[in-house]
Amino acid sequence: MKTNSSTSAVIIANGRFPRHPLPLSYIDNATFIVCCDGAANEFIALGGTPDAIVGDGDSISEENRKRFANILHIVHDQEINDLTKSVNYCIEQGITDIVIVGGTGKREDHTLGNISLLAEYIRKVNVIMATNWGLFTPIQSNRVFQSFKGEAVSLFSFDPEPITTYGLQYPLDNRVLTTGRAYKEKRPFRNQAC
Amino acid sequence: MKTNSSTSAVIIANGRFPRHPLPLSYIDNATFIVCCDGAANEFIALGGTPDAIVGDGDSISEENRKRFANILHIVHDQEINDLTKSVNYCIEQGITDIVIVGGTGKREDHTLGNISLLAEYIRKVNVIMATNWGLFTPIQSNRVFQSFKGEAVSLFSFDPEPITTYGLQYPLDNRVLTTGRAYKEKRPFRNQAC
Repeated sequence: MKTNSSTSAVIIANGRFPRHPLPLSYIDNATFIVCCDGAANEFIALGGTPDAIVGDGDSISEENRKRFANILHIVHDQEINDLTKSVNYCIEQGITDIVIVGGTGKREDHTLGNISLLAEYIRKVNVIMATNWGLFTPIQSNRVFQSFKGEAVSLFSFDPEPITTYGLQYPLDNRVLTTGRAYKEKRPFRNQAC
Repeated sequence: MKTNSSTSAVIIANGRFPRHPLPLSYIDNATFIVCCDGAANEFIALGGTPDAIVGDGDSISEENRKRFANILHIVHDQEINDLTKSVNYCIEQGITDIVIVGGTGKREDHTLGNISLLAEYIRKVNVIMATNWGLFTPIQSNRVFQSFKGEAVSLFSFDPEPITTYGLQYPLDNRVLTTGRAYKEKRPFRNQAC
């Protein structure tokens, strides 16, 4: 078992295994890789070696369960999913920066759950989610993003708080985006938003 | 152009074209098929013939634009997406029951947008969304669902209203599920929920 001296980790969640170069590059460059137990079999089959496997343990093969017994962390808790268990595990290990990959692309209820959970995780740890289609960055207050002309950006809000953007082609000026009531796609991103 | 004497329609949205038998069966049995313009090329290439194509018209091929000119309904409105334009078109045609397919599976911002828009549509028309992974049914008040023991069901709430379920293995009793703050998967579904 590798000792984790890093403060960053990549979590491979139970969704569709990444195919796009962006999430794959996070895996390739990771210093510490945590697999949700449903993702471990595929990652291992592709030649990967996780540093930890976390979950309720009902998805990992018997072979991998034995082979990786020393890094398998079983958490029985019906109230939280394997991704949250993995995030909690990382925080317990002193990790401060997490990139989640494989969090989407299969069951949409899991996709919705995993994305909305970013709003929980960001209270405790720096976290982004990289998918085959883009990057999710949860924000709690003002934030500046580097961008380029023509980049597509979508904004979602879980709280009925007014949002103001700068540098977008179609700006928001103190506007409330309530979930389920409004969906705004702002593109292209011209400069930066905060 | 087929005259639509039906009150039901299937809308094929711009996401991943359906592969699962459930959404495909809705297409096969549809009496009126509306394609969002980004979905029209693939549906036509697969041998389908839409009854209407709705959207901003920037995704349909030149060939199909000419071939289907008489059923192409271009709507320029930056504030709503092609799915909403298609739903509005159906309502204008007197449609009362809509099944949306192809609404997920590509860009997650579109997936989130399309799913959350169900909460808008249900105020005006009966609507469900069938995906390769399941069925989304927006509800506004009490509702009874037929089910079977072992069926997986997930509940999401866009409003901070208390929810009570009956017949689930892990019931909710007057519990608020706030989006982004709580995600509950309740399975298996034992009987019915309302």
